[in-house]
Amino acid sequence: MDISDLASRVIKGERRALARAITLIESARDDHREQAVELLEAVKGAGRQALRIGLSGTPGVGKSTFIEAFGVMLTGQGKRVAVLAVDPSSTRSGGSILGDKTRMERLSRDPNAFIRPSPSQTALGGVARRTREAVMLCEAAGFDIVLIETVGVGQSETMVADMSDLFILLLAPAGGDELQGVKRGIMEIADMILINKADGDLLPAATRTCADYAGALRLLRKRAQDPDGFPKAMLVSALSGDGLETAWEEMQTLTQWRKENGHWDAMRARQARHWFEDEVRLGLLAQLNNGAVRARLEQLGQAVAKGEITASNAARELLQGL
Amino acid sequence: MDISDLASRVIKGERRALARAITLIESARDDHREQAVELLEAVKGAGRQALRIGLSGTPGVGKSTFIEAFGVMLTGQGKRVAVLAVDPSSTRSGGSILGDKTRMERLSRDPNAFIRPSPSQTALGGVARRTREAVMLCEAAGFDIVLIETVGVGQSETMVADMSDLFILLLAPAGGDELQGVKRGIMEIADMILINKADGDLLPAATRTCADYAGALRLLRKRAQDPDGFPKAMLVSALSGDGLETAWEEMQTLTQWRKENGHWDAMRARQARHWFEDEVRLGLLAQLNNGAVRARLEQLGQAVAKGEITASNAARELLQGL
Repeated sequence: MDISDLASRVIKGERRALARAITLIESARDDHREQAVELLEAVKGAGRQALRIGLSGTPGVGKSTFIEAFGVMLTGQGKRVAVLAVDPSSTRSGGSILGDKTRMERLSRDPNAFIRPSPSQTALGGVARRTREAVMLCEAAGFDIVLIETVGVGQSETMVADMSDLFILLLAPAGGDELQGVKRGIMEIADMILINKADGDLLPAATRTCADYAGALRLLRKRAQDPDGFPKAMLVSALSGDGLETAWEEMQTLTQWRKENGHWDAMRARQARHWFEDEVRLGLLAQLNNGAVRARLEQLGQAVAKGEITASNAARELLQGL
Repeated sequence: MDISDLASRVIKGERRALARAITLIESARDDHREQAVELLEAVKGAGRQALRIGLSGTPGVGKSTFIEAFGVMLTGQGKRVAVLAVDPSSTRSGGSILGDKTRMERLSRDPNAFIRPSPSQTALGGVARRTREAVMLCEAAGFDIVLIETVGVGQSETMVADMSDLFILLLAPAGGDELQGVKRGIMEIADMILINKADGDLLPAATRTCADYAGALRLLRKRAQDPDGFPKAMLVSALSGDGLETAWEEMQTLTQWRKENGHWDAMRARQARHWFEDEVRLGLLAQLNNGAVRARLEQLGQAVAKGEITASNAARELLQGL
């Protein structure tokens, strides 16, 4: 594969080249990894930055419908929009999110949009790497906005927030069921909370939920990277389109403020650094992906399970053999 | 240090030896680690098993009071009880949990109880290792029950569940505030939910909360390692002592059933294996704890933050230098 050719075609914005580049970075093969590193270094020269928006919401809040409506609104304003999915559970669920593109029918046919479903992967580390690299490729390909979609499973939200400029939490109007409550941690990382389905019969419940979260955000949060009045909780309806433009204006206001006050650059630098450290860890652990080492792991693992040797001692033995 | 002497004193149940042994496994020094591995291998021969009970609850649910009352009840039945704390946030908070032993005044003076606060540590991996090893030492020292206490921070609950035979979630009566909702994931790992403060004015609220969680558990769960009727949500009062004995009887029933049906051994084997794999990962990552490597990490990290090199490329460069 001619990597510098692929890189220049990605930078020209060729969708097929972008799709192929993402397939390359998703590959677990060692030679592909070498090429992926080369490709990323080559496209870095384009020097483009998109607005990276992380979007989280549990199944049922209308995430696909929201992305469809929000994405079509953005392309209608002349923006180019890429949508990437992060689904650490996709191996088990068979890749539920974005797997069914018909749920975003208009956006998937839009020439200014690019939708990439989550690949089947196991390790969260691998998912993080793939997504960060796919974001870089989409940026190099000239997309103005990269939406990174995730479900609220395990650490996936923190992971997505860590690669986003803005992290948005999408909620449905609450029925007062305590068990549907939002994890507290996510309130601390959300830059904006959008209550979807603020239409028809659900409007009163949505309004109440929005007020609740607006209140909670005021109580819980005061971060240096938030100007006065942020983070906000707002009403939207993916169905009617109400609130989408206002939400987008607020995102731009927040982004602009962060850029002017140095927070944007500082966050990006911090994220890049964190990414590097993650890559180093991944690389160290990759030593275990080797036939002989795997066999030894299995053998010692069985001895540990049977109680023949302590875990600490077995680990020492394995590591000495590396 | 004479490790075989220390091991035999731990096995004899000498509290001072146990405390010293735990200090040894908590040490980050390389020579201490060697000795710790040797010590663990030496005490393994005792072949003792305690009941390992993981206990989680956010601040305010009355965790210390519960442990005090529950522990004193157990020692009153002739059991020996060890209490270990896992607090991944202790570096920041200054070690809030178990830091103040006066909160467990009776238990801490009880000759059949051993209480060990959480050390100041940073990495969650380090906390997991320390706790698992401390559990092993307490078992070797002949304790019948090892209580592993944690706050509901980040991954600490999953980590504690992964080293427990039973994982108990302690809750306070709910005020109907949705934001206090329990993380969904924990419902999936809890073997029993105890609603504390089921006394006085709070009794009606506790009863309601208990019914809610009992219902949710029935809806959410059916695992092979649960006999009919489990997991249970139950009322307790650490203040009055009500419900403590019943809860303990249910724990024993569940434990007995799991032992008879092979789940106990299978779980322990799975946990030991998982521990081993964790130790291997920790060991690999320990390569980064070296002056020269740290300096290079810092240097490359800065270049990545400035955008001079991609994270992937910088990681490759660092790893090649190892």
